[in-house]
Amino acid sequence: MDEQTAADERAGLEQASPEVQERIRKSFDSQGLMSHLGARITHIGPGRVHIVLPSRPEVTQQDGYVHAGATSAVADSAGGYAAFTLFPPDSSVLTVEYKVNLLAPAIGDRIEAVGTVLRSGRTLTVCRLEVFGVQDDRRKLVATGQQTLICV
Amino acid sequence: MDEQTAADERAGLEQASPEVQERIRKSFDSQGLMSHLGARITHIGPGRVHIVLPSRPEVTQQDGYVHAGATSAVADSAGGYAAFTLFPPDSSVLTVEYKVNLLAPAIGDRIEAVGTVLRSGRTLTVCRLEVFGVQDDRRKLVATGQQTLICV
Amino acid sequence: MDEQTAADERAGLEQASPEVQERIRKSFDSQGLMSHLGARITHIGPGRVHIVLPSRPEVTQQDGYVHAGATSAVADSAGGYAAFTLFPPDSSVLTVEYKVNLLAPAIGDRIEAVGTVLRSGRTLTVCRLEVFGVQDDRRKLVATGQQTLICV
Amino acid sequence: MDEQTAADERAGLEQASPEVQERIRKSFDSQGLMSHLGARITHIGPGRVHIVLPSRPEVTQQDGYVHAGATSAVADSAGGYAAFTLFPPDSSVLTVEYKVNLLAPAIGDRIEAVGTVLRSGRTLTVCRLEVFGVQDDRRKLVATGQQTLICV
Repeated sequence: MDEQTAADERAGLEQASPEVQERIRKSFDSQGLMSHLGARITHIGPGRVHIVLPSRPEVTQQDGYVHAGATSAVADSAGGYAAFTLFPPDSSVLTVEYKVNLLAPAIGDRIEAVGTVLRSGRTLTVCRLEVFGVQDDRRKLVATGQQTLICV
Repeated sequence: MDEQTAADERAGLEQASPEVQERIRKSFDSQGLMSHLGARITHIGPGRVHIVLPSRPEVTQQDGYVHAGATSAVADSAGGYAAFTLFPPDSSVLTVEYKVNLLAPAIGDRIEAVGTVLRSGRTLTVCRLEVFGVQDDRRKLVATGQQTLICV
Repeated sequence: MDEQTAADERAGLEQASPEVQERIRKSFDSQGLMSHLGARITHIGPGRVHIVLPSRPEVTQQDGYVHAGATSAVADSAGGYAAFTLFPPDSSVLTVEYKVNLLAPAIGDRIEAVGTVLRSGRTLTVCRLEVFGVQDDRRKLVATGQQTLICV
Repeated sequence: MDEQTAADERAGLEQASPEVQERIRKSFDSQGLMSHLGARITHIGPGRVHIVLPSRPEVTQQDGYVHAGATSAVADSAGGYAAFTLFPPDSSVLTVEYKVNLLAPAIGDRIEAVGTVLRSGRTLTVCRLEVFGVQDDRRKLVATGQQTLICV
């Protein structure tokens, strides 16, 4: 059992199958934007994915907080991969649309985006998006959204 | 008259005042994310701002198109600065929320985001967001959205 | 040429074919909610539908303006039928999601909702929604939105 | 203790103060649309309001299900009143915008809309909107949304 899996189990989070995890890590690693931003995937469960983005000058807006665009980029990816965990092996996922409310400045040494499938259909999937500002052990909800995805 | 202003006039686009242009360029230059992505601001008019993002491996998703997160990051900034052109000098702008529909893969050698103020209020401003994939002289609408901003 | 068609032509609005018009009027007439609210369809063009709702005490909120729920109900129907004008004869249309910004109180003796197709796909269609408050000949934009529909 | 309060306590739902409950019932009763649709308010807690709408031919779309417009009208009202429970006595509430995903046909003998405050600010409040189709004791999520409100 690797370190991440052990941490997830302590947190009571269910793991996706090794096949699904591999499929998603492979896709994530091929997204130029995610590595350019410095994001990494930290949990892959059935219908639920976490992505963490460390605060760095490269991802800020004019006041030094994480930019709304970076916040929603990782939220969009977390929701997309959450949907993808439930898709058939030979399919791919596209974001149809999403909406995000920015609730508070994204303060902290990192943000954590959580995508959770609310409804999984044959064609369309709907996810909840949540982004937390994390400083040490304190987490604060900084953005919340809703996303529609299509299986193609 | 600089090169950009001349190009805007050929396109029939009205320019914001030099003071507003400077205020916005200064804020844009202080956004770490925009320069990290490689985005540049190409038009600042009253209630309307254009931002261009060249396609590079650093901004793509898994299929090689511009990532929805990068698309919406520049759309969010274009709308935010469009609102900001109409705000008082000593104010600042925050995105309350936005929603974006991704209509087509963001193909082309660059994308161009256009933010346009639909309604400017004392507290809240609503913008339309449009993103085009541009290849040579062809432009195709690849994303459309709507955004709410607050003047603080 | 009936009265509505003549008025549309004066306004420069293209008409949908008689078959499409009949299909849409038949569906509209079977919506209990639209007749209960007192809404009527006033224009059916290819990819564009108008619905008018007279202001009456039955459709107001607590301040006497048209209720946001009534405003968005007619906006949703206008977008749905705009999409439906471009669908094959034996299909039906469902709203996947929509988002609406309420820009101003819906003042006037009626509201007019305009649904316009922005992108028509085989499975998904995206519409722009606009609602105007109308008093005599003055029209004011009171709501604007964006909607995703599915062809089933 | 009235019948509704007793039912809420059995369900573990906290009640708002009598003053807040009266303020909200008075506002609700002055909304022409809610009584015209046949909606009634069934729970008023701090930051949470439930509204029930019985299925009747007057609120349906063309297939006999509750119309998306009626679904979102009661969702919008539930969120608006949930926000209003946390506002100062002499204020009023306006919907800035909302977005709703329609997940499944609204089947059942009634729908129940639940508005829950996610973030309460001095100016802006953000609510989660959920609508359930209810048949006897079975509840199914048929719509989910997110709403921004302003205190004026």
